[in-house]
Formats: sequence, structure tokens, C-alpha cells
Amino acid sequence: MTVKVAVLGVGMMGANHADQLTNLVAGADVTVINDFDDERANAIADAIPGARVVSDPFDAIVAEDVDAVVIATPGPVHEKQVLACLEAGKPVLCEKPLTTDVESSLEIVKAEAALGKQLIQIGFMRRFDDEYMKLRALVESGELGAPIMLHLAHRNPAVPDHFDSAMIVKDCLVHEVDCARFLLGEEIKSVHILKPRPNSNARDGLQDPQFAIFEMESGRMVDAEAFVTTGIAYEVRSEAIFERGSAQIGLDVNLVRKSAPGIWGGTVTPGFKERFGRAYHDQLQRWVNAVKSGDETGNYVDGPRAWDGYAAAAVCDAGVRSLTTSTRVEVDMVDRASIPGA
Amino acid sequence: MTVKVAVLGVGMMGANHADQLTNLVAGADVTVINDFDDERANAIADAIPGARVVSDPFDAIVAEDVDAVVIATPGPVHEKQVLACLEAGKPVLCEKPLTTDVESSLEIVKAEAALGKQLIQIGFMRRFDDEYMKLRALVESGELGAPIMLHLAHRNPAVPDHFDSAMIVKDCLVHEVDCARFLLGEEIKSVHILKPRPNSNARDGLQDPQFAIFEMESGRMVDAEAFVTTGIAYEVRSEAIFERGSAQIGLDVNLVRKSAPGIWGGTVTPGFKERFGRAYHDQLQRWVNAVKSGDETGNYVDGPRAWDGYAAAAVCDAGVRSLTTSTRVEVDMVDRASIPGA
Amino acid sequence: MTVKVAVLGVGMMGANHADQLTNLVAGADVTVINDFDDERANAIADAIPGARVVSDPFDAIVAEDVDAVVIATPGPVHEKQVLACLEAGKPVLCEKPLTTDVESSLEIVKAEAALGKQLIQIGFMRRFDDEYMKLRALVESGELGAPIMLHLAHRNPAVPDHFDSAMIVKDCLVHEVDCARFLLGEEIKSVHILKPRPNSNARDGLQDPQFAIFEMESGRMVDAEAFVTTGIAYEVRSEAIFERGSAQIGLDVNLVRKSAPGIWGGTVTPGFKERFGRAYHDQLQRWVNAVKSGDETGNYVDGPRAWDGYAAAAVCDAGVRSLTTSTRVEVDMVDRASIPGA
Amino acid sequence: MTVKVAVLGVGMMGANHADQLTNLVAGADVTVINDFDDERANAIADAIPGARVVSDPFDAIVAEDVDAVVIATPGPVHEKQVLACLEAGKPVLCEKPLTTDVESSLEIVKAEAALGKQLIQIGFMRRFDDEYMKLRALVESGELGAPIMLHLAHRNPAVPDHFDSAMIVKDCLVHEVDCARFLLGEEIKSVHILKPRPNSNARDGLQDPQFAIFEMESGRMVDAEAFVTTGIAYEVRSEAIFERGSAQIGLDVNLVRKSAPGIWGGTVTPGFKERFGRAYHDQLQRWVNAVKSGDETGNYVDGPRAWDGYAAAAVCDAGVRSLTTSTRVEVDMVDRASIPGA
Repeated sequence: MTVKVAVLGVGMMGANHADQLTNLVAGADVTVINDFDDERANAIADAIPGARVVSDPFDAIVAEDVDAVVIATPGPVHEKQVLACLEAGKPVLCEKPLTTDVESSLEIVKAEAALGKQLIQIGFMRRFDDEYMKLRALVESGELGAPIMLHLAHRNPAVPDHFDSAMIVKDCLVHEVDCARFLLGEEIKSVHILKPRPNSNARDGLQDPQFAIFEMESGRMVDAEAFVTTGIAYEVRSEAIFERGSAQIGLDVNLVRKSAPGIWGGTVTPGFKERFGRAYHDQLQRWVNAVKSGDETGNYVDGPRAWDGYAAAAVCDAGVRSLTTSTRVEVDMVDRASIPGA
Repeated sequence: MTVKVAVLGVGMMGANHADQLTNLVAGADVTVINDFDDERANAIADAIPGARVVSDPFDAIVAEDVDAVVIATPGPVHEKQVLACLEAGKPVLCEKPLTTDVESSLEIVKAEAALGKQLIQIGFMRRFDDEYMKLRALVESGELGAPIMLHLAHRNPAVPDHFDSAMIVKDCLVHEVDCARFLLGEEIKSVHILKPRPNSNARDGLQDPQFAIFEMESGRMVDAEAFVTTGIAYEVRSEAIFERGSAQIGLDVNLVRKSAPGIWGGTVTPGFKERFGRAYHDQLQRWVNAVKSGDETGNYVDGPRAWDGYAAAAVCDAGVRSLTTSTRVEVDMVDRASIPGA
Repeated sequence: MTVKVAVLGVGMMGANHADQLTNLVAGADVTVINDFDDERANAIADAIPGARVVSDPFDAIVAEDVDAVVIATPGPVHEKQVLACLEAGKPVLCEKPLTTDVESSLEIVKAEAALGKQLIQIGFMRRFDDEYMKLRALVESGELGAPIMLHLAHRNPAVPDHFDSAMIVKDCLVHEVDCARFLLGEEIKSVHILKPRPNSNARDGLQDPQFAIFEMESGRMVDAEAFVTTGIAYEVRSEAIFERGSAQIGLDVNLVRKSAPGIWGGTVTPGFKERFGRAYHDQLQRWVNAVKSGDETGNYVDGPRAWDGYAAAAVCDAGVRSLTTSTRVEVDMVDRASIPGA
Repeated sequence: MTVKVAVLGVGMMGANHADQLTNLVAGADVTVINDFDDERANAIADAIPGARVVSDPFDAIVAEDVDAVVIATPGPVHEKQVLACLEAGKPVLCEKPLTTDVESSLEIVKAEAALGKQLIQIGFMRRFDDEYMKLRALVESGELGAPIMLHLAHRNPAVPDHFDSAMIVKDCLVHEVDCARFLLGEEIKSVHILKPRPNSNARDGLQDPQFAIFEMESGRMVDAEAFVTTGIAYEVRSEAIFERGSAQIGLDVNLVRKSAPGIWGGTVTPGFKERFGRAYHDQLQRWVNAVKSGDETGNYVDGPRAWDGYAAAAVCDAGVRSLTTSTRVEVDMVDRASIPGA
């Protein structure tokens, strides 16, 4: 069986998904391309043998030649599109954010739970990265005892002009939010975003860097530096402190050179594609495989679920409030057990 | 277009190719499985939707539902199978060795050249590895000046009991032979295999480690340690010394931990799948893509060619003679320019 | 000229100073040993040709055969001993803490300032460590722009049974306090000590690890993990985030090995002597040289001064209050400019 | 007791020794400075309180205010000066080479052996380097089994114009000769110096790099790259391959930075003082301590002995012949056991 996929939204991320599904992922055909900009949709579809453009995303979701949906549209339209997928009973891989506010994310969690089968996967692709999987495995093994703290860092060379302080929380820290939850296997109880003196290269008014303190349910603490105007490269590094040791991932190595004027070293990973390109591929491949085998298991996901999207939204919401109030803010989340199937 | 592939030989390597073509490579379907052991062929084919077993490899090659062939059979039958692919005009990805002797390898080079289109690709998968590609790119860029020396190391934890000293040359050093040729872009002129005091863990009579000196056409020198009873892991490391700097690949890093009793470090890559798994995937994907686009280009390869298989055979042949005679042995190769199209 | 030194207090640290002054530092002779335990003093003095025991520390300070004093006695007696050195006009290298409370530290700063010459050096030996000096030089050079954040970590394998939560602040974090001040060249404005879930290997009631947030005068932020029951080794690591880059020190490398079962790595520095042994030596050597040249310069120090001891005391005092109150505590310090000569 | 030292030859190396003995080494006073250039001797002596110039090296050796001698004069005068030290019964630390030919080195070995006490130490300072000591300790421990091979590299940024191919053997490879002997604890049986295509930045006629193969008595093999026109820095790296693992020293780490344009790394050690400065200090300190304690032990050395100087001379002599003849050359050495006390 080949999975026939509709890709909604073919900006940078969606176009990349469409290309990977076509040229790198086994078992999937992109049959439908949708974008609010038909011209862009056509340009992408032209490069994919057998793909057609459907202008209305809801038509695309219910189309007969569509088995599963990838949502890479702007956040504000996610809610309706994901719900349409649920209604159509079609598996969906939805880019973060699940929705743009906590309440609607929770509604989606409930809607999927009510359906009784897992259809929604969230695009937190780091969970498919070799190093993160190794670090998670180390946590699960208990080999170094229980984890106690995480030190996380997320650095971008630059951001577009419209990027504001809250977007650092919702677009960058959100990944560290999911890492903390994924690596420690528990929810975040409170967020406090500290504001170091801003980088002089940051646009006026942009609070960059930000230094977040997450307090986990168990009392563990996680700190996360987000710094988006470094001018250097894409740097993502995580350190876990355990009861009997520590472990780090995200060191830049590979080709190491020594050259004039007396320096040794390598290159820092320039962007997220170089750092997580393989994770994106593996995310899609495993999702396609899950969609194929869904008939047997009743679940069409192999990765983070709607709940993970909801939890990230709740934490980021608290983060933005902390940014505004300069105080520690409790995360407001419903009890997962209260929604059977979530 | 989906490329329909016959896989000849489904031992460990062929079975892995069949699995990757089916589950990880876009644009290819495995339609035919062949093995001298029909039972093994059936077991593999059963796991691949749409694949059937063909007992005679030559029937498989000419089958109508076969566009291209992967040869992973034992070396002694390669010659006839590759020639049959040429005769049938079908692109072939042939695992090393191209053939088991220098003369027949040369015959194949000539046969393909006479055909006027490139159909044969050799499975030197390291050329698809990110780090090797980066090191080759550094050589080509001229950024550090011309390369002067290479220090290469190839270590295996263990080898089967039947592995003899000549096999260290033909199965292990052969990879370093291709690396030297790939990285420096020139042929090897002579080989001298030095014999350090053997490892006490090596089987009696096995010359392990071996230390090879390759003299390149340009006078550059390459040394290559092959050590196959280390008991540790699969370790492959290369250092290039340039006129204005040096560069190393193959350092083991990724997750780094610190733990009792006071040690820091990571794990050494346990086997070739972990080290080169992605290179195998990319080799297949790029080959499948080349086969697809061959009608336009007339060439159905994207990687090492028959000549590279011949050159490796010639160098390894000299290597085995050096091992026997304990002297430096000139490599005997025809002039590539004498075979237009090779 | 050879500097004749009295060593007050010959526990582990003082004994080490006496040994280094005798056997590794040029230009100094230990002439007087003092300890509250005469037996211990005699044992140490016996191993040093020409050294005698003086039972009363104040007699030792004023002795004719004493040019300069090293104070390695318990903290509570520092105040009177340092003041006696000032009164006698003798240069003194005082181990941290300068005194055990903020007020008396300030009194000493004032007393030395009133004297008009610099006689007091504090034993913050990290300032003499190659790596810290390189990181400080990088800050001073401005090459990577202004520093924005520091991430500091301080880990000990174990602590004695009497070690309590406040001692983690005063004995461990105090080093990070001085590092933050030394590396950034400014004072600490507030301290907030966060309390992650304690290590299960920590004694009941011990808040370990602690995670401190220092806000600097300029608005820069520094975080410092102190973790003293890791069971691993002595690990001290610092990362500075600049406007145009970042830099790390304290990576454990040196001899790197690969061995069964498939691991690579080295040993983590077991203790402070291995990590900072050379810094201790260089601290003493540079102090001895400064004492020698003091007659010309009028200043007998080459390193952290009384003010640095006072500042550390003030910050640690705030730290202990933060630990108790679980809030951010402003550091209460006088204006340095108000004490000319401090 | 303070050891009164005469320093013969105060070029760069001797001046450094005089400075360290005066300002960094405990227990030694430089009392006499000698140099063929009196002016240079005066300049050095003026900076050392209590030092005087003696114009004739043989007068310096026998002077009453000289307990021990450091020889840092040009190689051709070493023989007579070392013999004069033996005759005067004075401990001597002699910079490499012991003498400039194999025969006279052997004569010195015999003369010292005849004396019945150890007076001669050779300045192979790497034996005092922490990393080399750790690697030697790893060999001795047997933890990874017996050593099988060493891969050694020695790179200099540049050499003076008069530096010829033979000097690469005698001034650079000589250190690797001693390392091979020190690390493996056995003699070198043959030397073969291979000649890679020279660096285009090397002076015309200079064979640079050179690649030496040492065959040890036990059949172990050692390869050593010497490359003296790299333009980069001072790079010395050693890897030992054992029966059950491998180990590397000489990796450049310390401060690691990440900065634009997207690179990470540190600086390569610029020169031998930065790399081995502490080894030079420790060599002197331990030698001074050995000279002090010699009365009890009858031996006044703590480091490489005259025999080590002789062995290095014999190996380098073979190396130069290999360079000329382009063949493997057996090392011609007497049996150490034939000289009791050597």
C-alpha cells in the first residue's frame, strides 16, 4: 500500500515535507497540494509526478485520493484543519503549534480522545533525532540514576524583523519545552523567564537572550537559554544532570581541521536542516509507516500526540505571561487522566 | 516512474539492500529476489509486498519486471552477472569486489566502455558518507593547499575464523584503497604492507594488524592501518595533511557522558551499519534517482564506476603480493585513457 | 632576596602551601609554621629545613624572621590574623573566606585602604588558571563583543557529613561568585538560589544541587549549578555567551582512549589539586614575586584583593538568605569608590 | 641545601633554563653563566642576583661555587663538556644531542658507567609531560594489553633557512625516537624514512614531510610523521594501539569557542614553550631535587640517562642513512648489558 498524502501549506516547511515525501520517503505519494497562494501550490505540484492542486484545504482533506494529511499552514488555521481531519477520520501530521491558544488545543485533544483512535501527530521532530533518542534512552535506562536537572541552549544566528519577544517563547523555547517534557517524561509546573541584558545586535525592544526556568512536576528544574541573534549558526545543545553522572548532546564535531592562524576546530551547524534534516526524514518515514499499519493497531501515530501540542501551548502561554510580568507563572493544565484516550 | 529492482544475493548485505529499497528509499520497488538458497530468497521476498523469487540469476536480470539490478552475491559469480546486466542493458549496483581478479575486472571496464553508456556502479558506499564528502570537498576546494599525506585507520572488533591475512587486504584495506583514490583523485602507484608484531588475540598465523603504505602517482604517500581483532568496535578514521593545514574525520562523539568512576566519553560506533547506515541509504537513493534519470543522460550511475572496481582490484592484488613477499610492489594497471568511455 | 614566610594553619590546604613554597616555588623559604595543634605544626616543620614552630599566630606574624604570611587557618580566626598582618605591615595571602561575616570583611578593606598600600591577597586561585585567564582575556579583548551571560557549573564527588546547604553557598558557590566577578569585571547585584529536587544520594536535608542566578550590575545574568554529591569527580566548567560568539572552558580531555566495551573517552579530573594544582603554584609564585618587588611598587599583591574577599562575602550572605527565603535577594554592598585605596 | 648551578650556553634554550632555575624552580641558585659570547653571558647574568660570568666552560664546571651543570651549548662541544663534568664528579643536565656522533656518545656512556654513579641526565623533556607520563603509565599498567603500534606526528610551523633534511631527523624525529623508546620501553631495530611529495612551501631540496617507520626489537612498529613547514603551529600527537584498545594524547582543546563565520574550535599550541613549558619546569625541578638527594642514592639523575642519548644518536644516524639511501637501515647499537652500570 502506498499512502496518498495531501500537503496543506507549501511555504518553506511544507515544501520541504512535500519534497521529502516524494523523493526520500518510501511508501508515500503526494497526491494533493494546497496553499492559500495557488501559484505557489502549482509550482510545487508541478515538480511532483501525479500531484494535483486543490485550492480549498477542506476539499483537500476529504478528497478520495487522500489517505493522510500534512498540515504546514500558518498556526491560526490549524484548529479547523485538524478538526476536519478528525471528522474525515484521516491521520494528520500537524506542524507546531497545534493551535494558537491553549483552549482550542485542549478541545482538539478532547475531540481525538472521543474518537477512540489516535489520528494526530505533532511535528516535534527532535524526538526523531539520534542524539535526543540516545539521551532519552539514557534517562529511561536509569543507568545514571534519576535525572535531576537539564541545561538547554537554543541559538539562532538571526530572526526576521517581525520576530518579537513572545515569538522567542512560542517559536524557539517551544522546542525546549517539548525536549524537557520528552526527556524527563513529565509535565512542566511553572515557568519563569529571566531577562538578561539584551544583545546589542538585537532589534530595539527585543528581549534576547531569554533565560527560562522550568519547574517540573517532580520538582526537577530545567533551564533553557534562547538566543536568536547570535550571528553565528544554529546551535542546539542539551545537558542532563543525573544522580550518578551527566550527559551532553549537541556538540559540534564531524570534520575537524587545524589550519592557520593556529586554530583547530570545525564548523557549527549552519541551520536546522543540517542539524535535524535526518530527523525530519525519519519523522515522515515513521509517520507514513504508522499510517500504513494503522488498520491493525487502530492508532495512526508514531510520535508526539495532540496532548503534547496542548501541553506545549499551555507552557508557552505561561512563558509569555512570565515575560510580561517578570514573575514565575504556574502552568495551567487539565489533568490528562481526566480525558481517557488523550 | 518507480524503478523495479532485482536483488541478487540476500545474505546480510543483500537483505539489507532489499529492506532499504522497500522501506526507506523513495521511487523503487523490489520486484525480484534471487539467491542460491531458495529458502532464504523466499523468506526475504515474503516480507516485501509485490516481490517474487526467481531462482536463476540470469533469468532475474532479463525479467520484464526488472529495470535495474543490485548484485550482492558472492564475489566469484559477480563477473558473469555484471556482464549479463550489460548485455541486457540494465543498470547495476554491484557490491565490491567487482570481480575476484584484476583481468576480469578490466574486461568488464572495457565491455561497459564499448557499450557507450554507464551502467555499472560499485558499492563503495563511503563516498556517500557526509564526512568523507566534506573531506573530499576540502581537498577539491584547495583551501588548505594541496594534500600531501593521508593517515587512515580501519579497525574491526573481530573477524570470522576463516578470515585470513589476504582477506584483510581484500575486504578491509580495499575500503582504504578506494578512500585514498577518492580523496586524492589519483591512482595508487605502489603498495607496501608492513607487518607489525601480531595482536596476541589474533588467530595463529593471521597477520593482524597490517600497516600499508600507498605511494600515489603524484608521489604523495598514504598510510593505512588495518586491525581486525581489536575487540572494541568499528573504528574508521582518516586524517588528511595539506600544505596549509590538516583535517580529521571519524572522531566518535555524539552523546558524551561523565560518570563514575570518574570517566568521560561516549560510545565507539559498534558496527558498519551504525557508522555508514545513512551512506548505504543515500547510495541506494541516489542510484535509484540516477537510474530514473538515465534516459535523459545516457548514464545510469551516480557514484563509483567499474573503473574504480578495477583499480581497487589491481591495488589489492599488489597488496596481497606485498604481504607475501614483504616488499614494496608496483601496482600494474592499464592507462585509463586507453579505454575511451571508461 | 628570599622571602621568609610564616604559614598559619597547616591542615590540608596550609600543609600544601608550605610544601609548595618549600619545594616548588622559587624565592621563598618557609621559616615559621603555626597551627592550633602544635603536634601537627611540628610534623610539617620537621619536613622543612630551617622552619621552626611558633605556637601563637600573633607571635608568628610579628617574628623577625617572617617577611610575609600565608593564612590557612579556620575562617573564624581570619579577621584578627589579617588585621595583625596589617598592623605589622606584612603582606598576607589569606585563604577564603576573608572573614566569616560581611561587616568584618568591610572593616578589613577599610583598614588596608587607610594604610595606603596593598598588603592583602585573597586565595581565589582560579584567577591564576590558564583557562580562566584565557577566558578573561577573551572578554577583555572584546573580540566576540560584550559578554551577555555566563553558564557555570561546579561539581564535587562528595562532601563531609557536616556539610550543610549554606556551606554549598559559602564553600562552593563562592568560587563561582568570584568567577562571575572576575570574568565580567563587575559586581553582583542580586542572588536567587533555586532548589531543584535533591539528589537521592545527598544526605537528608541537604539542598543539593543548588542552581544560582546572579544578576550583575549591568543587567547581565549568570547561572551557576553547584552539585556536591555527584559521586563522579571534580568538575568545573564555564561558558561565556558573547554578543558575537561563545566560549567554553573546563572540558576534560588530555589522554583519550578507546577500549572495550566500545567506549571512548578520558578521565574526569578527580580533585581540585589535579584541576587547579598549577594555579595554586602560580598563585604562590606570583605572590612571592609581588612581595619581593613590593618595596618598589608599594603594593604587595598580585591577584584578588581584600575587596574581592568582601564582595564574595556579601554575595554569599545574600545567597544564604535566598536559600532560606526562596526569593531573589539584593546584594548589600558599599560603594567601592567611597573607600579610596580599596 | 640549595644547588648551585652553572649554565653553559645561554642561547634561547639555556637562557630559558637559567630563568626557570632562578624564578620558578625551588632549591636552585644559578651561580655561574658561561657562553662563547661573553656579552650575551653578561646580559643573562645581570638579571640573576648572585650570578657571575665565567668565560671558559671548563673553569665553570670545576668552579667551587658550582654543584651541578646545565649544558645548553651547541652539540659539537657537548662531548668535552660532559666528560669534564664526569671528571669533576658533577651532575649534569645535557640538552640533546648528547654528542654529535654515535661513537662519542657511546664513549660517554662507558665513562659514566665506569664511574659507578649516575651523573648524566639528557634533556628529553617530554618524559616529564603529564600526557606522556599518562600514556606511559597506561602501557605499564597492561590495562589495554600489550602495545602493538604507535602513530606519532610532529609538526612545526616553520624552520630556519639553514635547516636541511638531515636536521629534520636529528632535531625533530629525535624526539619521536625517544618517545618510541620511552613509551614502549625497548630499543629501535631499524629505521626506514619514506619521502612523500614535498610541501610546496618547503625550501627547494628540503624533504619535508618525512614519514619514518621504526621497527622495534619486539617486532612492534612505529610510524612517525615529521613535517616542519606547516605554517600552522606546534603540533605533537601520539596514538598508541594496544591489544585491547587505543589511546591518544596531544589533542588541542582548552578554551573552545564558537563564533562567526560559523566555526567552533580552539587554538593550536603555537610553540614548544606553550606545549612543554611545564615539562621543562618539572624536568629542572626534579633534576634539582635528584641532585640534592644524590648523596643518599649515589645517583644524581631523575630522567633519561646517557644511554638514552646514545640510543637516540644511533637511531638518528640510521635515519640519516635511510634518508640518503631510501632504504630500510638497521640500527647499529652495542648491547646495553655489555656495559654494567649503563
